[in-house]
Amino acid sequence: MSTATAPASSTAHADALRALEARYGTPWSAPLPAWNETLDSLLAHRSVRNYADRPLPEGTLETLIAAAQSASTSSNLQTWSVVAIEDPERKARLAALAANQSQVREAPLFLVWLADLSRLEAAGQRTDTSIEGLHYLETLVVGMIDAALAAQNAVVALESLGMSAVYIGAIRNRPEQVAAELGLPPRVMPVFGMCVGYPDETRPAAIKPRLPQPVVLHREQYNVPSQVGEIAQYDEVTRAFQTSQGQSAAGWTARSLARWRSAESLHGRDRLRDALNALGFELR
Amino acid sequence: MSTATAPASSTAHADALRALEARYGTPWSAPLPAWNETLDSLLAHRSVRNYADRPLPEGTLETLIAAAQSASTSSNLQTWSVVAIEDPERKARLAALAANQSQVREAPLFLVWLADLSRLEAAGQRTDTSIEGLHYLETLVVGMIDAALAAQNAVVALESLGMSAVYIGAIRNRPEQVAAELGLPPRVMPVFGMCVGYPDETRPAAIKPRLPQPVVLHREQYNVPSQVGEIAQYDEVTRAFQTSQGQSAAGWTARSLARWRSAESLHGRDRLRDALNALGFELR
Repeated sequence: MSTATAPASSTAHADALRALEARYGTPWSAPLPAWNETLDSLLAHRSVRNYADRPLPEGTLETLIAAAQSASTSSNLQTWSVVAIEDPERKARLAALAANQSQVREAPLFLVWLADLSRLEAAGQRTDTSIEGLHYLETLVVGMIDAALAAQNAVVALESLGMSAVYIGAIRNRPEQVAAELGLPPRVMPVFGMCVGYPDETRPAAIKPRLPQPVVLHREQYNVPSQVGEIAQYDEVTRAFQTSQGQSAAGWTARSLARWRSAESLHGRDRLRDALNALGFELR
Repeated sequence: MSTATAPASSTAHADALRALEARYGTPWSAPLPAWNETLDSLLAHRSVRNYADRPLPEGTLETLIAAAQSASTSSNLQTWSVVAIEDPERKARLAALAANQSQVREAPLFLVWLADLSRLEAAGQRTDTSIEGLHYLETLVVGMIDAALAAQNAVVALESLGMSAVYIGAIRNRPEQVAAELGLPPRVMPVFGMCVGYPDETRPAAIKPRLPQPVVLHREQYNVPSQVGEIAQYDEVTRAFQTSQGQSAAGWTARSLARWRSAESLHGRDRLRDALNALGFELR
């Protein structure tokens, strides 16, 4: 990383400011200590749902998983696994289970990221060791976090290679059916899916502006009062973005509240606790 | 990303193979389609607990949070926040709550990443909109995943800038006390902490080898039978690593099983569900 701590050159500095402005939809006002290719790639993230008809180079999946396994994992327990699906019929069945999202069918590679407590359970059985800890909510939380950190490293890796992805939370709409489709043993949870492919450049995805930093970043203690005005401003930024994308200009607040309005608006995920129990998680 | 899809040069190729071999403790056998600076940085990750006495450049925190906010977030709900702590006394109190881990005190910057449902709840109150969805396990899962994706982007960003980090899961040992220390409103969960600083080059951290890929990566369906021999081989790799680090050569299986042996070995996290209830999560 020879460039890691070098001060940003003036070109890099201009690129950085452009990327940060796109991310927030407002000018960047903080100092900018340094910039590099990795930050460029992180800031340029967008979720892509339209893929080019172009296969992934040999070795891509293995490279992404090496990046994923390089992420931190709680106590090196590595309580995650991933299933890579390329079979069109299996992708179609998984798409049907995940709110019929067409990108699950259309992406050349679909990954289902798993919180996996079965590996340690099997090791306990082989060595005749009881492993009481498996039955607590905490250990599933560890598995979900492990899976998320790994998956995000894979996204960073694939984007650095010119590919794109989108997370598919709808894989939690019908967890038991997904588990059956993938032949999961007990105590393995499908946490989310991920479509991977080269982006279709004829249907480019836009960078979605995020909440102003003062809303999510707190200093020393959580700061409630600062949020209201900033969120109102963000609703304006979001309305402008939605209009530019030909969407209805509902803003962020109204659209977000609608998403979680009722149990029904969770599309089956209101029964996630029952589904996890059925998959062998006691959640004590 | 001019280098994104270029084939790896022979120097880059050799560097890549070295990085991959360090990550697994065994030679790399898959094809290698391309390589770049970002993959270098991802593969070189190690958790660092010893920091140099060197302040972070101005603007570092804001840059890391911009990277974090660039990560995917479920339905753009952005159900996470982060508290940045630099006050030595508050860091010391948080260290005491997190199994007395000295790195929490010693890192120049300590971040507590939060699953934050309070922001949407407050928006609902302001607009007199009911938001029933908040009370389900699913919505806390969304918050935890959002927080983890954001945090991992911050790690990738800071490592690309020559800094290091370590996740602190022990922030979940006593969640109510952490919430009180940080002044968290109801329906905000401290998911994990993170120490950030420049690494102390006089006490370098090693790259920890991970499970062989066939153990975590499954094709089309979950494959149980392949795992046993690979895990036995990994126990050998881990014993060699532990010996090289002056640790007892317990291997991975025995050490991992011990970590979750009993409710007591969870160090308070066996009561995470009760703690979350107390923090206002119904977990329906």
